[in-house]
Order: sequence, then structure tokens, then C-alpha cells
Amino acid sequence: MRKEHPLSEIAWADLQQLSPNAKAPHLAAKDGRLFHVLLAQQFNREQLDAIGELATNIRFIAKNEGGLKFLQDLLAHKRAMLYFTQPSTRTFLSFCAACQILGVKVGEVRDTATSSEFKGESQEDSVRTFSSYFDFIIMRTEVGGLAERMAWVLSNSDRPIPIINAGSGKDQHPTQALLDIYTLQRSFEEKGGIDGKTIVFVGDLLRGRTVRSLASLLTNYRNVRQIFVGPEKLQIGRDVLDMLEAAGVKYELSEDFRKAVPLADAIYMTRVQDEWDVEKGESKRIDISKYCFGVKHLALLKPAAVIMHPFPRRGEISPEVDHDPRAVYWRQMRNGMWIRAALIAAIFRRDAAIQEYYEESV
Amino acid sequence: MRKEHPLSEIAWADLQQLSPNAKAPHLAAKDGRLFHVLLAQQFNREQLDAIGELATNIRFIAKNEGGLKFLQDLLAHKRAMLYFTQPSTRTFLSFCAACQILGVKVGEVRDTATSSEFKGESQEDSVRTFSSYFDFIIMRTEVGGLAERMAWVLSNSDRPIPIINAGSGKDQHPTQALLDIYTLQRSFEEKGGIDGKTIVFVGDLLRGRTVRSLASLLTNYRNVRQIFVGPEKLQIGRDVLDMLEAAGVKYELSEDFRKAVPLADAIYMTRVQDEWDVEKGESKRIDISKYCFGVKHLALLKPAAVIMHPFPRRGEISPEVDHDPRAVYWRQMRNGMWIRAALIAAIFRRDAAIQEYYEESV
Amino acid sequence: MRKEHPLSEIAWADLQQLSPNAKAPHLAAKDGRLFHVLLAQQFNREQLDAIGELATNIRFIAKNEGGLKFLQDLLAHKRAMLYFTQPSTRTFLSFCAACQILGVKVGEVRDTATSSEFKGESQEDSVRTFSSYFDFIIMRTEVGGLAERMAWVLSNSDRPIPIINAGSGKDQHPTQALLDIYTLQRSFEEKGGIDGKTIVFVGDLLRGRTVRSLASLLTNYRNVRQIFVGPEKLQIGRDVLDMLEAAGVKYELSEDFRKAVPLADAIYMTRVQDEWDVEKGESKRIDISKYCFGVKHLALLKPAAVIMHPFPRRGEISPEVDHDPRAVYWRQMRNGMWIRAALIAAIFRRDAAIQEYYEESV
Repeated sequence: MRKEHPLSEIAWADLQQLSPNAKAPHLAAKDGRLFHVLLAQQFNREQLDAIGELATNIRFIAKNEGGLKFLQDLLAHKRAMLYFTQPSTRTFLSFCAACQILGVKVGEVRDTATSSEFKGESQEDSVRTFSSYFDFIIMRTEVGGLAERMAWVLSNSDRPIPIINAGSGKDQHPTQALLDIYTLQRSFEEKGGIDGKTIVFVGDLLRGRTVRSLASLLTNYRNVRQIFVGPEKLQIGRDVLDMLEAAGVKYELSEDFRKAVPLADAIYMTRVQDEWDVEKGESKRIDISKYCFGVKHLALLKPAAVIMHPFPRRGEISPEVDHDPRAVYWRQMRNGMWIRAALIAAIFRRDAAIQEYYEESV
Repeated sequence: MRKEHPLSEIAWADLQQLSPNAKAPHLAAKDGRLFHVLLAQQFNREQLDAIGELATNIRFIAKNEGGLKFLQDLLAHKRAMLYFTQPSTRTFLSFCAACQILGVKVGEVRDTATSSEFKGESQEDSVRTFSSYFDFIIMRTEVGGLAERMAWVLSNSDRPIPIINAGSGKDQHPTQALLDIYTLQRSFEEKGGIDGKTIVFVGDLLRGRTVRSLASLLTNYRNVRQIFVGPEKLQIGRDVLDMLEAAGVKYELSEDFRKAVPLADAIYMTRVQDEWDVEKGESKRIDISKYCFGVKHLALLKPAAVIMHPFPRRGEISPEVDHDPRAVYWRQMRNGMWIRAALIAAIFRRDAAIQEYYEESV
Repeated sequence: MRKEHPLSEIAWADLQQLSPNAKAPHLAAKDGRLFHVLLAQQFNREQLDAIGELATNIRFIAKNEGGLKFLQDLLAHKRAMLYFTQPSTRTFLSFCAACQILGVKVGEVRDTATSSEFKGESQEDSVRTFSSYFDFIIMRTEVGGLAERMAWVLSNSDRPIPIINAGSGKDQHPTQALLDIYTLQRSFEEKGGIDGKTIVFVGDLLRGRTVRSLASLLTNYRNVRQIFVGPEKLQIGRDVLDMLEAAGVKYELSEDFRKAVPLADAIYMTRVQDEWDVEKGESKRIDISKYCFGVKHLALLKPAAVIMHPFPRRGEISPEVDHDPRAVYWRQMRNGMWIRAALIAAIFRRDAAIQEYYEESV
């Protein structure tokens, strides 16, 4: 009786290779174009370039009222469900803004206390409910692999609609990885691109899903050197290193922040992810004071390098650093809005219309 | 000094007959057309048919971008207040989507912790506040009769605006009853309509307001047989049976689920409403495992019958049943969005414009 | 490295004179026109008149569908962030409605539990985050001076955007003061305006920020007599009286409510602000029953006087008084929506377009 939807033609096995958490997601529509956004690894270099270019076009068009109104009309007939059971301001608001830029109307469930779930409903039923009322779902959850599983559920339902993973569990936060790549693309636009650059990751590399995803996406570029700097207990996981080795990527591990700063073309600071502490207060016993970027480090940094941070920050970067032109983390944050708008536009096949408008405008 | 608004010409007494909870609501505008939506019983058969037809037209028009944009323009100048002090995902989101379909902008109060009510304001003042900023109010509350009372308050204020009852107390959830009727209308569209059909209600019939409201609405149809199946302690209330007897409707009570399944043209499953438990754990002592629809029941069911559920479900229907074409509960859920859009459109007199667009489109 | 934004040309010192809490806000854009809305005192009489007139024009235009659609198109390309960490229904909803009237899309953070702040982010970073995604910020907070500080932060960032203070701490709630002034303007429109009138403030004058702000704004008018009536422990603060004396304004203090009523051209009732109690139950020990307006006081009140209240009310005004035509507090509440729409329109320079449309319509 079960109808197999065309989307499920993409093999489960392919996806499982990409992510051990994936429970048979179907990432692309039948025509091979973007459908679900679930994993950073689903994007190859060509796709990363295309999404980045689309984001840049949207950003350009949005500079004036006429352009904004053109954009707002593109998907004015679409409705998005923002299903955020894991707290997040930044990701929520940037998706909200991205939807508004394209005219998409949003509904939201952020607080599980106001939801029906306490009445004992399964998550499958909740997500199918959203699919009854909305045209796509943007979801964020503490449960690893849930977005992938829900994509599978929907792809096999009567109403398959796209899912965008806005962070699930410890592993995947693909739109963050895409905005990071986009920030690197823009930063190195006139400096030969990402190829050949040295990226220094600093902080809690073990539990920061943004670092894990970005490290993986960077394997799409040639001769990128990745340096992981942090206290031993928070050093990057073995699985990431295995992945880098399999891809033939150069990497180094270090505990010496000061020594790493001058090597960086991009330095990617992160905070301690103590919300993932297994034992209470676990993170507090680790000294991370050596892994903070202060004014004194500016002199060590290459003149053309950039400083990034996925935010929120605590003390990892001193606010005084904000005024240095190499501090691109505020721009990086705003890039999140553009890249998310680009993804939504691509899912609903508005890339060509945007490209056309852009070319007429320049 | 008090100005009596035209709406109050409809007598309080009439309404009290319909609902013992009603405190003088005024359901219709002076021209006799729909104003407040408070009680399932306020709709007669002719009105049920008209609302159903309007929902079908909206559903048809919404199938393409042009139609969606036509709909979005209809009430783009209206603002709705979603006032949900009782938790609900489904009803909230479907109203939200219904508003968006018609272009209505929404404001919301869902969490009383973020509201002024802690400062000791009366509910009358809260509702009059909403009426200061919005064009209609959609409200859901645990307090029986509150929506009716607020409709009365507003009808006698300087700014009478419509109220839609999205569930109040144990008794009334009129838009759920309307979407259930609409689902039956659609299901039996080519099978002679609702007249003469057998509807089997299963589960917690005592406290499920959807069953109570639907049982009442079905009295508008000829020769409908109603069968109530559930454990003795959760059997339908005496007041509903009195109402059916007064209307001359055939009904049966049963504890035997298996025996009832083959009789059904529509089988309406419900969950245990333990949020209404007077004593903690009260519901857990009742065995409802016999009142669940599993794959094994599919063979017992008439080929042309339909399975319904107001959701959320727990174990009342096995997810494997979802793939049977007779399982219409997901369609039923989506019908909720269309029927709510139809109600809003009718309240603001957009039914003729929709009808006209529909006729030009087919 | 720090870029000084043109906005900061307005001297910090000027602002500090206006408000001891102000940390160098920059209220106006380089062209001298409205930018941030932070303090009631930033508006002079000419500006109060202009904002009031703009509100009246918007109110008039909004009377029909064509006008509403004109308004909705004015700022359809703008996005507002509603950042409300202090609970408030009324102010939130009226800003929400004001945005919708002008077509502005909104994002919101109301519940700090769903936000990133628990991850230890500074408020400066939060506000800069909002500025990354939105075009202006409407903020409400328990922290005095915070809106001013954030305006300063933004004015010195790469993305200076306007901040509207929707209530900060015990002191400032400028949009409430503006709607109060607007209500007085309308009430005395055909009675010679605000000049020469007697305003009687009643209740918790010590902690009600609306009274403090309104008392200050009224110094812009000639020969206004201010009478402060309340229990000794809740009498108006010395700083307000100093301000009135410096401005040469006549004032009186009284504990006798009954005696004050007949003197009023406008009587401004307030509730006890017990959320500011230092000691628990502190307010309950004060007898305020003498400071309530009941039906019996209507006979004492001048025929042309008006009764106001900033809401929420508890028992300060009996609901029976609502039906007296001198009870303008519901109109006052709705004025809040119009004045907020006027402020937003003014900030984004749509006043001329509104004026023009208005003149063509009358």
C-alpha cells in the first residue's frame, strides 16, 4: 500500500556513507536538484559555488527597495514551519529574516510547553502535521539524526515537502557550515579563493558541530591546511581526522594558540559547548583562557587574514577586536541570513529568476 | 449610557437553549450573516453546506501560485489575534496557516507568562485590548463558556469584532466539528452524502469535545446512525443522548469495538483525554487497549468506509494503518486549514469573490 | 580603528542632561530628523505636534481597505525586531499591529528561555545580532538605561539601525508618554488644546514610569497645572518635582482623591506597580482603596473632562465607568497603535508620503 515517492530513488546506502546517523534521507528531488538540506556533506564544490553566488546576488538585489520588493514577491505564496525544540536565537532569527526577504510566511513552534507533544504524540505525527499546513519545514533539535529521519518520513508520505536541518544533535548544522564556507569565499574572493589557505580552528573542537561540518566541507577545496588548536580534552574527534585522512587533507593538532595565530589565513574561534557536558561542571575544570583572541594577538595575525566565530561568544574574542577590519564575524553572521535565503530560493527553483534580475540590475 | 450594538438583537435565550454554558453570545451580524463562531450548534445544514463548498473552492484555487496570490490579497488588510491560553499546536498552526492563505496578519498570545495577565487584569480587559489592535480574535481556553462571554462583552463595546472559538473548556470546539463534517462531506461526496450513513465513535467519548460537537452537528442530516463504542467509564454523556433523542436520531451504545467496525461508514477514533482527569492517574486505570485500530481491523472495515481521528493520537491507530486509502485522518487534518480559511472568508464577506474566481478558473 | 558614525555628532552631554541614566545615546540622524526613540524628553512641542498629526493622518487613512493597502506598502521591505525581555502584552501587541499597518515584517524574542542568552552572551552581542538581520529594534527591558546604551553601541557599529525604547527600567517608556500626549491632544482638540489644562495624576506615582514621562512632556505646554494624588508612600519622586520647578510648572501634592476629581480636565489613574516592590508584599500594606474611580465619582467630574489609564487596570476604575463618554482609556489604548505607527513611519521618512495621501483623500 505504501507509495514510494520519487525522492526515495536516491539510495539509502549513499546517505549512510555520508552520515552514520542518517536514516535514509533523500536529499535531492527527482531532477537531481536541491530538495532537503540535511547534511553539510551533501554539497559538492560546484554546489557550494552555486549557492554562494546565489547568496551574493540576493545580497546585491536587497540593497534597494525595488530589489527587496522583487525578492519578497518570489515566494510570497509559500509558508514555512520553524520547528525549533532546541533553544536558538540566532539561527531562528536568521531563518525568519531569510523567509521574510523572500516573502515566505512563517509559523513557529519554539516552546514545547505550548505544543501538543505533551499529549503523547510521536514526532513523526508532529512533523506530518506541519506538512499538512506548510510548504517546508525548518527544524532544529537536540536529537541527532532526527532531521534526516523526518525527511525520510515525509518523502514516503502523501505530502512530501522539503526539510531544512537547522541543527540536529551534536553532529550536523549544515546551514552554519554553508555560511562559514560562504564567508571564506567572500573573504578570499580577491585572494585566490579558498584553495591553498590555512584554516586554524580554536577552542572546543570536540563538541562544536560547526567545526566538524566546516572541516568536512573544506575537503572540497585543494591544498587546504587545517590546524586544530585546543586543550587536549576538547581536541577534534578521531572520526573527523579519519575523514580528513581519507580525503588526503593535511592537518595538524596543537595546544599552542600563540604559535598557531601567525599561520592562519582564517582563524575560527569557538566557545566551550558546555550544554553537552555529560557530567555537571565538567567543562569548568578545563582551562580555556589560553584559547582566547585578544588585542595582543592582532599584531601576530597576517594582514590579510580573517577572524571568524559562529557565535554566541563568551570571552573567546575580546570585544575590542571587533573594530579590526580582519574581524569578519559580524559579517559572517549576516551571511547566515543570505545563505539561508539562497537555500530556500534554490529549493523552490527561484535561482534563475534571481540570476536574471541580478544581471539586469548590474 | 451603554450602547446596545445591533448584534445583541439576537436573543440571549435562543443561545442558552443551544448551550447551557453560553452567556448570551450574539452569533450573527444584523444582516443575519456569520459574525461570531462560538458553537457547533449555531450552524444548520444549509450553512454547513455553504461553508463546505467555500472550503472546497479555496482548496481548488490554492493549487497554483496565481490562485494563492488572489487569496492572499483578499484580506491582506486584516489583522487577527490568536489568543491561545490552552496549549495546542495543531489548532494554532492551522488557524495561522488559514490566516496566511487569506493574507491576514496575525499577532499572538500563547504563553501567559509573557502576558500582562499576571499584573491582575481581568479577561474582559484583555479581550478588549485585543479588540483595540486587531480585527478579529481567535481564542482557545480551558474555561468553558469563555469565548461566548467574550463575544457578548465585545458585542456590547464600542468596537465589536468577531470572535472565533478555537476550543473552550470541555464542551465546545466548533471549528473541529466543522472540519469533521467537511471531511465526511468530501468522503461521501460520490456516495450519496452523509444522509443514511453509520458513524461509529470510539474511545473517550465522555470528555472528547470533538465527539460531542460532531454528534450534535450530525443531527442536521437524515437517517444517520450513531454508534458510541468505549469503556463504560468513558461512554458518551447523558446530555448528548438526550439531545439525540430530542432530535429523533438513532443511536447505540457498545463496549465491543470489533463488532462495531464492520458497521461503520465512518469510524471516528479518539484518544483518552487525561488532561481532564479529576483525580491524578484516573485514566490509567481504564483499559483502552481494546479500543485501538490496528492492521487486523482493516479487513473488517467496509471497502468504502473512512477512518478519522481528530489528533493528536497515541496508540489508538497504528501508524501502519496510515497507508490504507481509507485512512483519511491526514486529509482531515488538512481540511481543518481549509475550513478555517472558509470561516474567516465568510465572516469578512469574501465568499462571493471566491465563488466568482473559482467559477472563472474551472 | 573605531569608526565614529555621523549619529554620534549629537553630544553625549546633551543627553546626560536629559536623563541621568543615558549613556550617550544619539537620538537624531545627521539631518536632525528622528532616528532613535529613547526618551520622552527628546521630543519638543513642535515634534509632539508633528507626530500627533501624523498619527491622526494614519488613523484616517486606515479607515478603508484602499488606505490600509497604501499604508501596508510603505514599509513592506522593512523588518523589525521585537526584543521584549520584560513581559508585556499590550505594548508588544500594539507595536506588532503598528508594524503590520505599515507592512513591516517582524521577528521576536519574548521568552529568554528560547534564546541564546543562557549560553552566556553579552547583551551588546545580542543586540548587534538583531541588527544583522533586521532594520530596526523595538526593545523592552527591566534594566534602566539599557535601550540608551544599546543605541550607543549600534550607532558606533558598522550597521547603525534605529532603536525604539518600548519601556526600560523604572524610568522611561517614551511611546506610552507619546500616546498619552496624543490622547490629550485629541481630547482637547476642540477645547483649546492642552495649554491651561489641569491634569490630575492618581495612584502609584512613585514607580509608574508613565506618570513620570508624561509629567515631563507636559512641561512643553503653557500653564498646565499638575496635581499628584496618592498615598504618601507612593507620592511622586522628588526628581520629578525638581524637574517641574526648573521648568516653572505649577504643581500640587495631595492625598485627597475626592477633592481632586472636580479640578481635573484630565484625570490619569494608575495601578500599584508592585512588580517593583523591593520587599515582598510591601505594596499590600498600603491602602489604595481611596484612590479608585467609581460610578459615584462621575457626578463630581467636569462634563468635558476625560478619564485616562495606561492599563492594565485592577480595581482603580470600575468597569461600569467604561460606558461614560468621558472614559477615553480604550481610545487611549488604540491611540498607542497609531502613535507607534507614526513613529516608525517618521523614522523611515514616510511622513511626507502619508501627508500627501491624506490630503488627496480628504
